[in-house]
Amino acid sequence: MEIDINTETPIDKNIVAKNVELVGKKFIRAGNTRMIRRMVDLIEAETDEKYIRMEVGEPGIRPLEIELSPELAEMKKNVSSYPPPDGLPVLKTEMSKFLKSFLDIDIPPLCCIPTVGSLNGCYASFMTSTKRIKGQDTILFIDPGFPAHKSMARMLGFNQETFDAYEYRGEKLRAILYYKLSKGNIAALLYSNPNNPAWICFTEEELKIIAELADEFNVIAIEDLAYFGMDFRKDFAHPGAPPYPPTIANYTDNCMVLISSSKAFSYAGERIAILALPLSLYNGQFPNLLEHYSTDTFGMALVYGSILLTTGGVSQSVQLQLTGILRAANEGRYIFLDETKVYGEKAEIMKQMFIRNGFSIVYDRDGPDPIADGFFFTVSYPGFEGDELSERLLYYGISSIPLSSTGSLRAEGIRICVSIIQKEQFPLLEQRLMDFQKDNV
Amino acid sequence: MEIDINTETPIDKNIVAKNVELVGKKFIRAGNTRMIRRMVDLIEAETDEKYIRMEVGEPGIRPLEIELSPELAEMKKNVSSYPPPDGLPVLKTEMSKFLKSFLDIDIPPLCCIPTVGSLNGCYASFMTSTKRIKGQDTILFIDPGFPAHKSMARMLGFNQETFDAYEYRGEKLRAILYYKLSKGNIAALLYSNPNNPAWICFTEEELKIIAELADEFNVIAIEDLAYFGMDFRKDFAHPGAPPYPPTIANYTDNCMVLISSSKAFSYAGERIAILALPLSLYNGQFPNLLEHYSTDTFGMALVYGSILLTTGGVSQSVQLQLTGILRAANEGRYIFLDETKVYGEKAEIMKQMFIRNGFSIVYDRDGPDPIADGFFFTVSYPGFEGDELSERLLYYGISSIPLSSTGSLRAEGIRICVSIIQKEQFPLLEQRLMDFQKDNV
Repeated sequence: MEIDINTETPIDKNIVAKNVELVGKKFIRAGNTRMIRRMVDLIEAETDEKYIRMEVGEPGIRPLEIELSPELAEMKKNVSSYPPPDGLPVLKTEMSKFLKSFLDIDIPPLCCIPTVGSLNGCYASFMTSTKRIKGQDTILFIDPGFPAHKSMARMLGFNQETFDAYEYRGEKLRAILYYKLSKGNIAALLYSNPNNPAWICFTEEELKIIAELADEFNVIAIEDLAYFGMDFRKDFAHPGAPPYPPTIANYTDNCMVLISSSKAFSYAGERIAILALPLSLYNGQFPNLLEHYSTDTFGMALVYGSILLTTGGVSQSVQLQLTGILRAANEGRYIFLDETKVYGEKAEIMKQMFIRNGFSIVYDRDGPDPIADGFFFTVSYPGFEGDELSERLLYYGISSIPLSSTGSLRAEGIRICVSIIQKEQFPLLEQRLMDFQKDNV
Repeated sequence: MEIDINTETPIDKNIVAKNVELVGKKFIRAGNTRMIRRMVDLIEAETDEKYIRMEVGEPGIRPLEIELSPELAEMKKNVSSYPPPDGLPVLKTEMSKFLKSFLDIDIPPLCCIPTVGSLNGCYASFMTSTKRIKGQDTILFIDPGFPAHKSMARMLGFNQETFDAYEYRGEKLRAILYYKLSKGNIAALLYSNPNNPAWICFTEEELKIIAELADEFNVIAIEDLAYFGMDFRKDFAHPGAPPYPPTIANYTDNCMVLISSSKAFSYAGERIAILALPLSLYNGQFPNLLEHYSTDTFGMALVYGSILLTTGGVSQSVQLQLTGILRAANEGRYIFLDETKVYGEKAEIMKQMFIRNGFSIVYDRDGPDPIADGFFFTVSYPGFEGDELSERLLYYGISSIPLSSTGSLRAEGIRICVSIIQKEQFPLLEQRLMDFQKDNV
């Protein structure tokens, strides 16, 4: 797509075009957020202009500065020992309590494992689950989803299948899952709830359907709770008190739950997440694992194979910091979901801004209801495919990723992440959207 | 192997036997140090006895408590942003300076990348190098080596080849490498220098041979400098002054160098290492990469594929701490190699202790010279295979790993790591070795 050379754009068009070329349109199409970010960094440096950054799902909130207890602070002084690859006992205990306090599920400390971000948790889940049963080697993505998860499977050479959940809500979900799983080649299925980027939220009934089919076909459901508790229509903020966010762990033992600390605790820079699985899956024995690991026990292969062999575990000091954060959350001293509510507030305002300037919301319904306000929303603009739109908006100082990169069938859309933008930037965003609309009628 | 039920062993034989059974002899045979460690932890807890721990290559030195500069300390306060997957610019600069100061090689900051331990650096090197050129999909291990590297390749489903370097020193190395590489299927070769566990040290001439053949057959040489500068026969301690440890980076651009901070800086708990590669390899374009990545540029695939997609990069606060450590080392304020000299001193004493009690050194020569004293040495005992010996020594309160797990052909040997044992434990070690010899004549 060429920009009309006679149009003056808010950001110097030659510099944008040069950098898009330099980094490669492939990365934009692939929705590689870190590469897009790097490209925008370069454009910002060269033009001295600031972008409205909506490409990376990164927290825009300063993390809680937690003072560690004397015991944890003392442990933090000596970091010469390798971390246990399944996590420090103090952290495992707090993770288990957190799951009880905020999801009302019982997972013993043994089965609560810190990973180097949810990315490593997902990687370890993919790796181990595809080696579990002969012939079950394919990952099913309930899309749309996080592009990195698909890139990961592709890099690892795993087969993938997908469908767009938006078309299959409620009982329709059973039909499509039955069709996909009954072929017998699916090792694991992955979804995020709330969904990145469509922000649809699976209901208890839908999770029950996924669980039933996972059990019927012995498939592991990987539940990515990256935006933990951020369905702000309900108040999940209080430990040990209902309501609780829905989780598939209530309905099946064939599951692995990933909780990122990046968004919930604004801790993206520290690379730590919770990977939790039921004890029966942890202890499950699968002879096929011996083809790739020294053990046939699922949890052992996960920890002493998939995790240990790619990272050696998570930094001890980071584990101790998270211990402090979780302890504060578990004891009700840190109401972390109050901090993240601002995302919903910003989404509400920003959606209206896009709509006023000729854009439409792509994923606009959550089952029978209008889509909620959260970390992401999705928009399109008449006459553009998503990757063209993402690219064109770069000339207007706005960065995003195309929906096509998320496994969405709605190729016309782009994903907007509200997290980094500050309310003071709203007038500038509105101005740039107006300029865009003026030039693209 | 059954222990004679009539023999009383220093550690309760029923408890040892039960735990060996529980964890599985497979893990001992596989040299899975973390699993062996866990087993020994359990035995210690149950018997209230302390083992002489020689299974894990873990530093026994408290790390330097470094005070960060105000600038770095300020950066450390905000960890809400994702780290750049190729590292913070301040760290990249110090890594580049470190390579100049302590190896006398010129690698620009762009090509100095922090990874979640050398394990993740090795993983990323394997992953990217096996996708580079069609048909070159096999890892060649110059053995003996670190068992985790082989387990990693096995988990990932990569083909592996191996030979035992001890049999091929000097010009013989050229012949075996030519034989292996000329088949055309090798993507990368890996060796550690000094060698884990044999402690043989490749010479400049040998590195030149490896480099020449890597160039001839377009194979990437992965150089694992886990025990950086620990050939204590030479004084490598002073930045910017010769002598420098030998490195293949002086002889070829087809290389990747891994420097663990675990042993050099006693920083194993923090999971951070340096992965460095020449600019020409970083910028190299390989169309085959597009089968698995969104880019055909090697460095981009490495960073935005292999590293980003498994960890998201290294914890920001850990990166900043390492920045402080490297800065102190580069400026000569922290003579880190003086700290690690104690390993050589302990090895000298411990070797004699084993020999006095009927053991022999397995890898006893380094080319024409006797093997040097360092982080590891290797022993055998008449009438035992290595895995039997490792297991039997557990009854005497001594933990180790069998050489067979390291790719060594010397199946009779075990690896002894001197790092954790403190000098005060020497009398206990001697006593246990005496007990062992008494029972096993």
